[in-house]
Amino acid sequence: MIQLPKHISDLTPYKAGQSAAEIQRLYGIDNVAKLASNENPLGSSPKAILAVQSALHNCSLYPDGGQALREVLAAKFGRMTEEIICHSGSDALIHLTLRTFLEAGDELISSHGTFIGFQVAAKLHGFNPQYIPQTDDYRFDLEAIFAAITSRTKIIYLANVNNPTGTYFTKEEFEWLIERVPTSVLVIMDEAYSEYSKDIMPDFLDSLRYNYPNMLTLRTFSKVYGLAGFRVGYGIANEEIVAPMLRTKLPFEPNTLGQIAAIAALEDTDFLEKSVALNTEGIRLFTKEFTRLGLKHPHSAGNFVMIDCTNPDIAQQLYMALLRKGFITRPLGGFSLPHCIRISTGTKDQNKRLIEAMEAIVPLVFQDYL
Amino acid sequence: MIQLPKHISDLTPYKAGQSAAEIQRLYGIDNVAKLASNENPLGSSPKAILAVQSALHNCSLYPDGGQALREVLAAKFGRMTEEIICHSGSDALIHLTLRTFLEAGDELISSHGTFIGFQVAAKLHGFNPQYIPQTDDYRFDLEAIFAAITSRTKIIYLANVNNPTGTYFTKEEFEWLIERVPTSVLVIMDEAYSEYSKDIMPDFLDSLRYNYPNMLTLRTFSKVYGLAGFRVGYGIANEEIVAPMLRTKLPFEPNTLGQIAAIAALEDTDFLEKSVALNTEGIRLFTKEFTRLGLKHPHSAGNFVMIDCTNPDIAQQLYMALLRKGFITRPLGGFSLPHCIRISTGTKDQNKRLIEAMEAIVPLVFQDYL
Repeated sequence: MIQLPKHISDLTPYKAGQSAAEIQRLYGIDNVAKLASNENPLGSSPKAILAVQSALHNCSLYPDGGQALREVLAAKFGRMTEEIICHSGSDALIHLTLRTFLEAGDELISSHGTFIGFQVAAKLHGFNPQYIPQTDDYRFDLEAIFAAITSRTKIIYLANVNNPTGTYFTKEEFEWLIERVPTSVLVIMDEAYSEYSKDIMPDFLDSLRYNYPNMLTLRTFSKVYGLAGFRVGYGIANEEIVAPMLRTKLPFEPNTLGQIAAIAALEDTDFLEKSVALNTEGIRLFTKEFTRLGLKHPHSAGNFVMIDCTNPDIAQQLYMALLRKGFITRPLGGFSLPHCIRISTGTKDQNKRLIEAMEAIVPLVFQDYL
Repeated sequence: MIQLPKHISDLTPYKAGQSAAEIQRLYGIDNVAKLASNENPLGSSPKAILAVQSALHNCSLYPDGGQALREVLAAKFGRMTEEIICHSGSDALIHLTLRTFLEAGDELISSHGTFIGFQVAAKLHGFNPQYIPQTDDYRFDLEAIFAAITSRTKIIYLANVNNPTGTYFTKEEFEWLIERVPTSVLVIMDEAYSEYSKDIMPDFLDSLRYNYPNMLTLRTFSKVYGLAGFRVGYGIANEEIVAPMLRTKLPFEPNTLGQIAAIAALEDTDFLEKSVALNTEGIRLFTKEFTRLGLKHPHSAGNFVMIDCTNPDIAQQLYMALLRKGFITRPLGGFSLPHCIRISTGTKDQNKRLIEAMEAIVPLVFQDYL
């Protein structure tokens, strides 16, 4: 019997959203819409897929550790290659950041109701972050986060857009915080969804317009670029932050085709614009119709909307009723929000059908509550 | 300034073999042969590439965490799915194993002159394994490894075939060790190269024929299957070992196309046989010709041969002379064997040209020594 460290035996694993095939099998439904994992309903960037097709001969060789993509991203963002790190998804980068910088006694701060991947990563490295309650409108309470900093604080994790609430904090709020945080504290800015809002909302924060020595911005190709299956994410920070992460990362990530897909997707502005436009329309529809149906939901800057069902039973009933109609959504118990579910925007048709389903379901599920 | 833990600031990164493009640029040589990274000179399994082509539409969705491949491997090896874990390369699995089982005060044992990836992984998790000297014929000294076990020993790392020496230990030697190791000690059997020898050498050890509760076998698709660019490896062990690793792994590895390529490659017995046959011929040629040239080299059961140049200067000269002739080989300073270089077998033509180059180079490089 191999002895397990206590923080590992205590660990609850990350549970991913269910697959369409799974639900087809379970419920015998043909037309299943997976609106659970914030994937791109338009599929992958076509330019990315074309680029991949012409690189298939090259996959017996080891990848270059992300070098080619780092150079492209450096040119795109006007940064040095040394300030960029690529890895297999931004969740791999969260793990890597914790592994690189944390040591016994360090403290971490984040918010209640944010990306569960950070919590899982912290726990499995033996740390229990402090989670600051959100504001009443489901937003990060940056003042309370600042007030929680101690001399042992090493990392603050912020998600903007926040998953699963869809809320964001503004340039002004961010500047207020980052100007006050000691430079010995690393601020992780997880911007997995920022492409959906950064050119649309005038007060939206794009952290790459700033260059603070203690800030690490994480981005991904899994969302608007439609490359979740390829596992590619990147981080941008001061060289002093990136250099040790390059030493601790697995040497060959990201994989060859993932890197090639990512480079091509960055140039596929058509696909990017179409994806953002479809999402903007979907969010507008969800917002209008959910309001009409009397559902409590924060306005979302991402590609998903969170519905606050006010109690866990209703959330579970709504989730199950949608599932039986062929819509996979995301229950948020794992995110410590058991009274909420999250619904990703889909294709126009999926969105329309979802609203029709909600019209039939919501009055029944909420009859004693609304 | 973000404070780094001491074991991270002390870290030397893993340095991968050089790429052909790099050497083409540096030396202006057209026909560069990369014999540095033990890749498959025949490229990837053609069935794997075909399978990938028909799965490109599926890459906007998150992968299933290796579930499909686990089921195929379970059927192939007659094990339960719960006894199998897939990840992005077996180096990711080495890291994951250390992260899952080690805690402060634990000790690790391995051998001098083995895979540098283990050393890097141990260091970056804050551990300094004990490296037991090899025997005079470059083999793991299993008796000395056994004698080094203390009550704090948690993990023993063995590579069979060993990279970079190409040597192996036999069934009898392995049984002697594993029967004696306390079951509280996890024995990692890294068998990245075993497909090259397991059906050829009668005394060769295939650890999957055994089922010890404290043994973890690691295999990869990067070598004989020719899928290094896809990043897929797997581990097989008792469920009590695999279950906590499934909790600590990144949820979405391996990537979608990597998994699909791996499943198809397992069925491509033609490609496997061709790859093994080409390698067997290459090893035979290298062995014969290196002996004729008076070079000291252990007989290899892998897809590479290590040359012991007896001193670091000669090794460096031989490496540089081969590089200038367009052959990238692997200097082994990073493996703590600075007096050695490692040469992967190539295509028939590459092997022939390598021997011609060696014939011209060796007398000059070794003139004062042989």
